[in-house]
Amino acid sequence: MPGKDFRALLFDVFGTVVDWRSSIIHELEAVGAHFGIDADWVAFADAWRGLYQPSMEQVRSGQRPWCKLDDLHHESLVTLLERFGVHGLTGAQVDDLNRAWHRLDPWPDTVAGLNRLRRKYILATLSNGNVALLVNMARHANLPWDAVLGAETARCYKPLPESFLRTADHLGLDPEQCVMVAAHNQDLHAAHALGFGTAFVCRPTEYGPDQQADLEAESDWDFVADSLTELAAKMGA
Amino acid sequence: MPGKDFRALLFDVFGTVVDWRSSIIHELEAVGAHFGIDADWVAFADAWRGLYQPSMEQVRSGQRPWCKLDDLHHESLVTLLERFGVHGLTGAQVDDLNRAWHRLDPWPDTVAGLNRLRRKYILATLSNGNVALLVNMARHANLPWDAVLGAETARCYKPLPESFLRTADHLGLDPEQCVMVAAHNQDLHAAHALGFGTAFVCRPTEYGPDQQADLEAESDWDFVADSLTELAAKMGA
Repeated sequence: MPGKDFRALLFDVFGTVVDWRSSIIHELEAVGAHFGIDADWVAFADAWRGLYQPSMEQVRSGQRPWCKLDDLHHESLVTLLERFGVHGLTGAQVDDLNRAWHRLDPWPDTVAGLNRLRRKYILATLSNGNVALLVNMARHANLPWDAVLGAETARCYKPLPESFLRTADHLGLDPEQCVMVAAHNQDLHAAHALGFGTAFVCRPTEYGPDQQADLEAESDWDFVADSLTELAAKMGA
Repeated sequence: MPGKDFRALLFDVFGTVVDWRSSIIHELEAVGAHFGIDADWVAFADAWRGLYQPSMEQVRSGQRPWCKLDDLHHESLVTLLERFGVHGLTGAQVDDLNRAWHRLDPWPDTVAGLNRLRRKYILATLSNGNVALLVNMARHANLPWDAVLGAETARCYKPLPESFLRTADHLGLDPEQCVMVAAHNQDLHAAHALGFGTAFVCRPTEYGPDQQADLEAESDWDFVADSLTELAAKMGA
């Protein structure tokens, strides 16, 4: 936007930067094949993600103390292994499967787009993923973050205001100097209300072929793009 | 060390990774030349660093609430401008000079050593510098951190135990899986007492030609090297 002096881009990660659903389905199917377990792994992946918001809501609401996403994912996984009748995995095997979230693959445009954007802007995560998850993912997927920040460093899950505000403060920037980049209109509404710039990156298959939400920008966001490479072009990077 | 499964290296930054003294002297001399101000800039640089530990000690002791290093540096700078009779800088000019700490230059072996080490280990800062300072420095000096962590993300200054323990926890690792890398025996004593591995990198001119302390390893550290490239070789990276 002309006249705005953006210094940093803050990225939602799951869905915006990485294709969590395909990656998780792939890891679940591999576990099923390896151990000879039959289950509806696509439904399992969607159910795992389905427990994501409810599990964080317990923390946001104060019902339970701070808990990092790895631990919430683990609790959900144990619940679903039981629900889907998947038995016989050792504790170490369950732990490794839980770390599938550390090994998510990027969208095809992600790495090229981030590398272009990084020439002009500071790039930081602003994810509900915990630091270890994001660091391991970045090494797996070659994501060139300048800083891995978000819920764990803010000790507050999105979309609560402190998750955004503390992340900007950690970068020594005002909200107005930062652009929240997300495939979710909800993230952008929360960020915009606090003064952040906004960039919507459309990911119409994040939730699979029948995705209903976030198929288009729902507001007059500062930037709208279909990929991170297109965003880089629109942001002059 | 044979038998140890180190996953991450945690770096002290000022002195170990970057040559703060030469960089700060250079920035101060440039300000002096630009504004036609005469002062003993070498003594000024040493005095600025001299106020570093006392200023953090006020936070460590609980005398004052959490305060990021940029703000402590700024207070010290204002004190020293007065003490050295340096007048006439605007607030913005003082702010910019304070950000000299964001623009410190690496030692000659630093970038090559870090890039080698990163092939095998997760690299994170464990510095008393705040996140913005470290992020800006990394972009200035091409430091390939996987994560920028330390006092600000732990909300606790080294060498208090929580600064080390929270940083390992952010990486999802036990202390035994991490090696503290520092040019200061004191940092390594504190880390070793908590179970961390230890690497001493000798920087005999960090404090100038007359340096008295930290000229050699004072204990049986896991690794001892004269540069980060030598450390990479000794750690098999």
